[in-house]
Formats: sequence, C-alpha cells, structure tokens
Amino acid sequence: MKLINAIVQDKDATKLANALVKNKIQATRLATSGGFLRSGNTTFLVAIDDERVQEVLDIIKSVSQKRKQFMVPPMGVEGERAAAFPVEIEVGGATVFTQTIDDFYQF
Amino acid sequence: MKLINAIVQDKDATKLANALVKNKIQATRLATSGGFLRSGNTTFLVAIDDERVQEVLDIIKSVSQKRKQFMVPPMGVEGERAAAFPVEIEVGGATVFTQTIDDFYQF
Amino acid sequence: MKLINAIVQDKDATKLANALVKNKIQATRLATSGGFLRSGNTTFLVAIDDERVQEVLDIIKSVSQKRKQFMVPPMGVEGERAAAFPVEIEVGGATVFTQTIDDFYQF
Ligand code: NI
Ligand code: NI
Ligand code: NI
Repeated sequence: MKLINAIVQDKDATKLANALVKNKIQATRLATSGGFLRSGNTTFLVAIDDERVQEVLDIIKSVSQKRKQFMVPPMGVEGERAAAFPVEIEVGGATVFTQTIDDFYQF
Repeated sequence: MKLINAIVQDKDATKLANALVKNKIQATRLATSGGFLRSGNTTFLVAIDDERVQEVLDIIKSVSQKRKQFMVPPMGVEGERAAAFPVEIEVGGATVFTQTIDDFYQF
Repeated sequence: MKLINAIVQDKDATKLANALVKNKIQATRLATSGGFLRSGNTTFLVAIDDERVQEVLDIIKSVSQKRKQFMVPPMGVEGERAAAFPVEIEVGGATVFTQTIDDFYQF
C-alpha cells in the first residue's frame, strides 16, 4: 500500500473531497498552513493499494492543478466602471508525494 | 523505528491518549476530519522502536476497535415512554498503518 | 527525496518558520498537541532533496533545541520583591524524524 500526501489550496479542498468520495476513495483531512503553497492549504492523506495510486493522482491533478483564471479586481472607492477590467491570475496547484506503508490494519 | 499512524473516532481519542500515557508511549495528536471513519476523528502519530509496535497496536485495538453498544434513542416530541427501547449501534473503529522511520533525532 | 517531520514547541514555531523561509525551504505546518513534547507543539513537514536534509536538521536544531533560560517567576499576591529571584528553566526541544518519499509531484 501507499500513503499519498496531497497539499492543495483551501479553495480546492471541498472539490477534491467530493471527487474522492465519488470515487469511493477514503481520505483523512488535515488543516495545514504555509509552506508548499502560498495561501491557506489543506492536506489530504490517502492510504491506497498500489494499483490505485495513479487513479488518485489523476483525480488530484484534475481538481487542483494550477490554472489561469480571469478575475474582476475589486473596484476602487470611486466605483469607476473603467477600473473593472478582468485580469488573469493563477490559482490552484498541488504538492503531492507518496510513501510506502509497511502494514495496514482496521480494528 | 516505525511511525504508527492511528485514526480513531473523536469519542475514543481521550481514552487512547490516556492509555498511551499510562504505558509511557509518546504520541502527537492531530485534529483530522472525514475519510477513513465517517464521523469526526483524531489522528495519533507514534514514533516507536520496532520491538514495541505490537504493544502499541494492541493498545489502539483494545481502546478503539469497533464494538456494539446499546443506546436509548432520543425520545420523540411527545415524550412517549414506549419509544424509548434501547437499540444496538456500532461505535468506534480505528484505521492504523505503519511506516518506516529512517532517522530519529531529539534536539 | 526525504520527508522531515519536526515537532517543536509552539514558542519556537514562528522562529522556525522564519528560518526556513529565509533559507528558501518550503514547509507545511500542522497544529498538533500532546505527546513528544509536554507543552503545546507544532509539527512541520518538509519534503526535501536528500542533499539538503542535514541543512534542514541544522536549522531545526539551532532554532529549537533544548536550552536553559532564566525566568523571573511571577510575584506572589503580596508582591514581595524578595520573591522575584530569577530561576533557571529548560525550554525548547525538538523531536525530528525522516522518512523516504517514493515519488514527488507538483501539479
Ligand atoms: Ni503495497
Ligand atoms: Ni527501526
Ligand atoms: Ni531521494
């Protein structure tokens, strides 16, 4: 078995939790901060058979990989329409690593 | 050395912490959620000599394994005595896995 | 790659986070409790190339190792000056262990 550690942005955490549930993949969720990703993040731990590791990686990637997004910046105090051009920003991103599980038990 | 990861239900976490202390086993406790167990859960990390792994597993199992329990369901709004028959429910359960620790330091 | 797990006292956590940032070392931070260290603690996870493990260990040690510190005990209710002799106490301390990372991804 493998342990998959996935650190994703908070904004992608609920989407990822739902995608894992939908695929019947159990995960433990930790509130984490700092580090691998600049903004608030959430760490998922998934203990899974070797044969399903790639499936889990694909789900994590599809849900939380870095992507461009257009955002309308908040208007200034004057509320001028001219200031409201959408700008392209980068969101998401995941840091993922796998480790070996020696023994696994359910009591 | 081994790292034991134990995910138990919140309701068993204090009992497990006490049992570990009583046996002079140091553990780090993480608030976790979702996944391996349906309700709120707590993850314990125990770094321990290989020779004591089975002892720790036995403690975790004895404290937090799945068991039947009789519960008197909450009464309905009418408060009828007839509704208060105890029902058998399943509580507890632990997901536990071990990993290899390469090097261990205390500074 | 290696995963470094470092459990330090809460009082040393900010210093350690700053020292890691200064050395461009990414870390994920977990609020943890109990166990390895008696008072409140924080766990840092650092995924790092094998060649940099010793550098990270040195940083953790320099920031958070056990050391003596003089503390003026809080005055009694009478506020007597005679009671305010500084006493030597031990603070800090870190429990650190490394594990092998099998595969590492950034999405
Ligand atoms: Ni395996
Ligand atoms: Ni060993
Ligand atoms: Ni390596």
